[in-house]
Amino acid sequence: MSTTIDIPESSKVVKGKGVVAAPLRPGGWKKGVAIMDFILRLGAIAAALGAAATMGTSDQTLPFFTQFFQFEASYDSFTTFQFFVITMALVGGYLVLSLPFSVVAIIRPHAVGPRLFLIILDTVFLTLATASAASAAAVVYLAHNGDQDTNWLAICNQFGDFCAQTSSAVVSSFVAVVVFVLLIVMSALAMGKP
Amino acid sequence: MSTTIDIPESSKVVKGKGVVAAPLRPGGWKKGVAIMDFILRLGAIAAALGAAATMGTSDQTLPFFTQFFQFEASYDSFTTFQFFVITMALVGGYLVLSLPFSVVAIIRPHAVGPRLFLIILDTVFLTLATASAASAAAVVYLAHNGDQDTNWLAICNQFGDFCAQTSSAVVSSFVAVVVFVLLIVMSALAMGKP
Repeated sequence: MSTTIDIPESSKVVKGKGVVAAPLRPGGWKKGVAIMDFILRLGAIAAALGAAATMGTSDQTLPFFTQFFQFEASYDSFTTFQFFVITMALVGGYLVLSLPFSVVAIIRPHAVGPRLFLIILDTVFLTLATASAASAAAVVYLAHNGDQDTNWLAICNQFGDFCAQTSSAVVSSFVAVVVFVLLIVMSALAMGKP
Repeated sequence: MSTTIDIPESSKVVKGKGVVAAPLRPGGWKKGVAIMDFILRLGAIAAALGAAATMGTSDQTLPFFTQFFQFEASYDSFTTFQFFVITMALVGGYLVLSLPFSVVAIIRPHAVGPRLFLIILDTVFLTLATASAASAAAVVYLAHNGDQDTNWLAICNQFGDFCAQTSSAVVSSFVAVVVFVLLIVMSALAMGKP
């Protein structure tokens, strides 16, 4: 729709001013893509920081204890979960810092620079977010199901709240991953098509 | 280097034929990027299929057994490792199928279509490869170090060969992940810059 509207507009400009220096670029949909990019980034910030906070506050102490030992599970118990908290906080911080560039893309929808910058950094942080989300998911899976061959017992029977909280953190982080993939695809489309 | 050589070439063509229909696009470096893309893809195929094969053949039976049980560890022991084998085989298959598009990008270095296609699918398979690599890494880490709070014992003391083989599969898969990031960044640069 927007393409068919824009073509007469830009040709009018050429007739009126007689300037042919800049190549004709129909495509007001790029502004729409840039606005969508900004909104999706806000959602990804919420998902990433929410995941970090949920995982970081996961802590459960069982109501019984022996003379020498108190049964407690927190995100400190697993190195993978510590990695998850740090990485998700980093990803959230990056997304906040990337908002100005997204605004620049809204103001100047045809500029390639900000989109190129965002697509490259998005790819790097997509990898980081996916790595932490997937590794935490692997540990959560083991906590739920255990493993017979290695005699690792499922701990979710005892630490139910802990498992629920870490599982929801993992789900939230995968939301951020999906948004990242969408952001990269949208930036690539906006950059590639005229 | 190639840029400084190409600029006089393209202006020579314009002088000789007097055709100005196509916009002048300096940038023979795009052909170099496309060739690099092809070579990196070959490397990534080797890394991904190597990772799948290494993980898929990991199997160790301990030389002692009880009346009821024989101690054996293979990639079947962990759901995560099964996921790893399937995903890495998929990623390798995708990379093989993506080679023709990479060849098209070499033949027509200025065409946006094949690059756009590759960048979008690369992003999806980067996410898949990273997810399986990171989740397998989390399990390998647990196999090496165990976890005190949940009383999961490290199994690498007993299953040394199994651990070595799965660890090298994980390393190989991360090589494929790094190559994917490079491929996306290179495609984005080649698509964004004139």
